[in-house]
Amino acid sequence: MSPCYLDWAAGAPPYRDLITEAADLATRCYGNPSSMHSAGKSARTELENSRAGLATVIGTTAEHIIFTSGGTEADSIAMLSTLTGKSQRSVIISSIEHAAIFEQARILEELGITVIRIAPDHDGFITPEAVANAVRPDTAMVAIMSVNNETGAIQPIKRIVDSVRTAAGNAGRQPFFYCDAVQALGPIGFDAVATGVDGAGFSAHKLGGPRGIGALYLRKPLRPLAIGGGQEGGIRPGTHNTPGAWAFAKAAARSAETRVPAMARARELEKALIDGLRRIPGATPIPVSRMAGDERYSPNIVHAAFPGLGGEVLCRLLDMQGIAVSTGAACSSTRKERRILDAMGVDRAFSFSSIRISTGRDTTVADINEFLGHAASLHAQYRV
Amino acid sequence: MSPCYLDWAAGAPPYRDLITEAADLATRCYGNPSSMHSAGKSARTELENSRAGLATVIGTTAEHIIFTSGGTEADSIAMLSTLTGKSQRSVIISSIEHAAIFEQARILEELGITVIRIAPDHDGFITPEAVANAVRPDTAMVAIMSVNNETGAIQPIKRIVDSVRTAAGNAGRQPFFYCDAVQALGPIGFDAVATGVDGAGFSAHKLGGPRGIGALYLRKPLRPLAIGGGQEGGIRPGTHNTPGAWAFAKAAARSAETRVPAMARARELEKALIDGLRRIPGATPIPVSRMAGDERYSPNIVHAAFPGLGGEVLCRLLDMQGIAVSTGAACSSTRKERRILDAMGVDRAFSFSSIRISTGRDTTVADINEFLGHAASLHAQYRV
Repeated sequence: MSPCYLDWAAGAPPYRDLITEAADLATRCYGNPSSMHSAGKSARTELENSRAGLATVIGTTAEHIIFTSGGTEADSIAMLSTLTGKSQRSVIISSIEHAAIFEQARILEELGITVIRIAPDHDGFITPEAVANAVRPDTAMVAIMSVNNETGAIQPIKRIVDSVRTAAGNAGRQPFFYCDAVQALGPIGFDAVATGVDGAGFSAHKLGGPRGIGALYLRKPLRPLAIGGGQEGGIRPGTHNTPGAWAFAKAAARSAETRVPAMARARELEKALIDGLRRIPGATPIPVSRMAGDERYSPNIVHAAFPGLGGEVLCRLLDMQGIAVSTGAACSSTRKERRILDAMGVDRAFSFSSIRISTGRDTTVADINEFLGHAASLHAQYRV
Repeated sequence: MSPCYLDWAAGAPPYRDLITEAADLATRCYGNPSSMHSAGKSARTELENSRAGLATVIGTTAEHIIFTSGGTEADSIAMLSTLTGKSQRSVIISSIEHAAIFEQARILEELGITVIRIAPDHDGFITPEAVANAVRPDTAMVAIMSVNNETGAIQPIKRIVDSVRTAAGNAGRQPFFYCDAVQALGPIGFDAVATGVDGAGFSAHKLGGPRGIGALYLRKPLRPLAIGGGQEGGIRPGTHNTPGAWAFAKAAARSAETRVPAMARARELEKALIDGLRRIPGATPIPVSRMAGDERYSPNIVHAAFPGLGGEVLCRLLDMQGIAVSTGAACSSTRKERRILDAMGVDRAFSFSSIRISTGRDTTVADINEFLGHAASLHAQYRV
C-alpha cells in the first residue's frame, strides 16, 4: 500500500484472504454455473449461496439480486431498460449522480427521452420536494444516488422515494426508482427494502471485494436492453463470475459485521480531518458548513478546498510525499470539470482548489495527521 | 477437476499459476488506473502492459483493444452501437451466432432495426456469397462468428469480409464487420488485422483465464450506447479490472505459445473421438460428413448424435459416471431448442439426441476412450 493511501472511495485495497480464497475457488470450482453436469452444479451452488449472502446484507432475498460486472453495469442495465418501454419517456436524475448515470442520461436524451436534472442544495443534498415536483405522468424512471462520491452527502432516499410515490400516485403511474448505492454499501450500509427503491446498484471493489463484480437489486424484474445467454434471470447476460460473486458477498458481509466499530473509527478520522482542515489558514471542508459528526454525511468521504492552489496540483504534490488523494471521482479525473461542486453552487475559487480525502479500514489518525501536515505546508508554499 | 471433464468450450479450468499471481496483483496493485496518484499509475502500467500483450496475440496494437467483462459484453457493445447511428438501419447476422449476438438482434429488431439472418449450409458453414447477397445500402453491421460453439465449424471470415467489402463498395457504404471470436482465440487463434474485421470479441475464461474479463478489438473507435466514467477510450465504462486483464493477457499469450503442440494433441483427440463415434452402432458426428483432421473445423469441439436417446438424458447419465459433456452452449442449456442444428437442417432425430464434446489442454486419449465406452453402453442400454 502507498505509505498513506487516502483514496478509498476510488478503490479499496481488497481483503487479502478473500482474494486468495477466491483464486482457490476459481481453480477448484471452474464449471459453468449454467451447465447441467456436476462441475456446473457445484459452481451454481457457490453462486447461489453468494447471492443469498449478499441479499441478506442488503435486507432482501436471493431472487432480487442480479450479479453484474460492477456498479456501472448495474446502473446501465437500469438506465437502458427505459429504452425497452413503450410509453414512459421521461427520466429524472440528480445533477450530482456518478457519471454512470449522468453521462448515460445524455445518450438517452439523444434517443428521444426527456431528462430532468435536479440540483442539490448548497450542502449537497437533493430534497424530496424538488424530485416530487419534477414527476410527470410519463416519468419512466427516477435515479437518485445514496452517498455522493465526492462530498459524502447521504441523500434522504426513503423520504425521496415516499414523496415520488405520492406525486406519481396523483399522476397515475409509478416510475421505476433507482438508487446508485455504490458508495453506501460498505461504509454506511444500504437496506433495499427499507428504502423502498425498485432498483439499486452496488460494486464489490469499493468495500474490499475484487474488481469486475457488482450487483443490481431489483424489487421486480425489468426488461433489459442488452440480452444474450439468459443468465441472471435474463437480465444480465454473460458467463457467471463465480469466484467474483463469492468474494463480493463475503466482503459485503464483513463490512456489515464490522460496521459499528468501523463507523466509530471513521467518525474519529473525520473529526481529526475536519478539525485539522479548519486549522490550516484558508483551507475549508466543502461544503463549508460540514461539521465532524454530522450524520447527514458518510464520514469516510471529505471534500476540502485549499484556495489559491489548484486541486490537481495539490494532488500531485501530495503524491510526491507518498500521499494518495484525488480531485474527485477517479472515473472523471482526467477531466477538468467540477460538475458536482458546480451543481452545489460552490465558488469556483474553492472548487478548482478542492480535493477529496477518503478513508478506509486501514486508515489511522497518524495518516490523517501526515496528510494535514503536508497539505498545510504545500498550501503555504505554493498558494498564489 | 471432474474425473473426465469434456466441456472445455463452456469454460476452461483456469491456469492455477496465473489465477494465483492475479490474486497477488490484486492486493499489491489495488489503485484505480484512472487515478492520478502513484497507486493509480502503477495499476495503469499493469493494465497497459496487459493491453499491449493481448494486442500482440491477436496481431494488432494496444490502442485497438478495449477490455470488457467478457465476450458477451464485447458483442453487446458492438451490437448496441447500431442504435447510436443515424441512417444505417439494417444488420446481417448468421443464424448460428451465439445467443449474445442472436438474442440481442431480436431486441434491435423490436427497436426498428431490420435483421437479416443468414443460414449455414448442411456442414455448418456460412458462405461468403450468402452474406454478400444480403448487403444493402443501409446495412450498418454484419456479425459473423469465427468458430461455432456447437459444431467447431470455422467460418471463412476473411473471405466473408472480402465479399462484404466488394458488395458494399457497390452499394456505396461499408458496414461495420464484427466477429465473435470467443471460441477461436485459444484453440486456433485469431488475427484481427489479417481477417480484415472492424471488430471482434474475446473471452478470457474460454482459454484458461479468469471469469469476468474479455476484450473487444476495434479497428476504429465506435460510438457506444452504454457510457459512464470515460474508461477504455469512452467505449467501455466502469472501473478497470487490472488483475483480470493481466491474467487474460497472460493466458492468451500462453495459448498462442503452445498452439502448435496443443493443436497436434487436439487433432489426435479429435481422431480418437470421431473414429470411436463411428464405431458405436447408430451414433454419428454432426454434421455426418465430419472427418477427423478436416481443417475446416476446430478439433476441440465435436458434436455427436446418439439417435433414440435424448441428448439431455445422455448428458445426465454420463454425469453420473463422472463425465461432463453438454447438449450445446451452456448459456442456453436450460432451453430445449436446438437452434444451431436446426439452422443446419439436421434431422430432428439426430439433433434431439445430440451432445457436444469439447476438449482442452488437460484432456487425454484415455478421457476420450472413457467417454466412448460409457456413451456406447448407455446408448445401447437406454435407446428407444
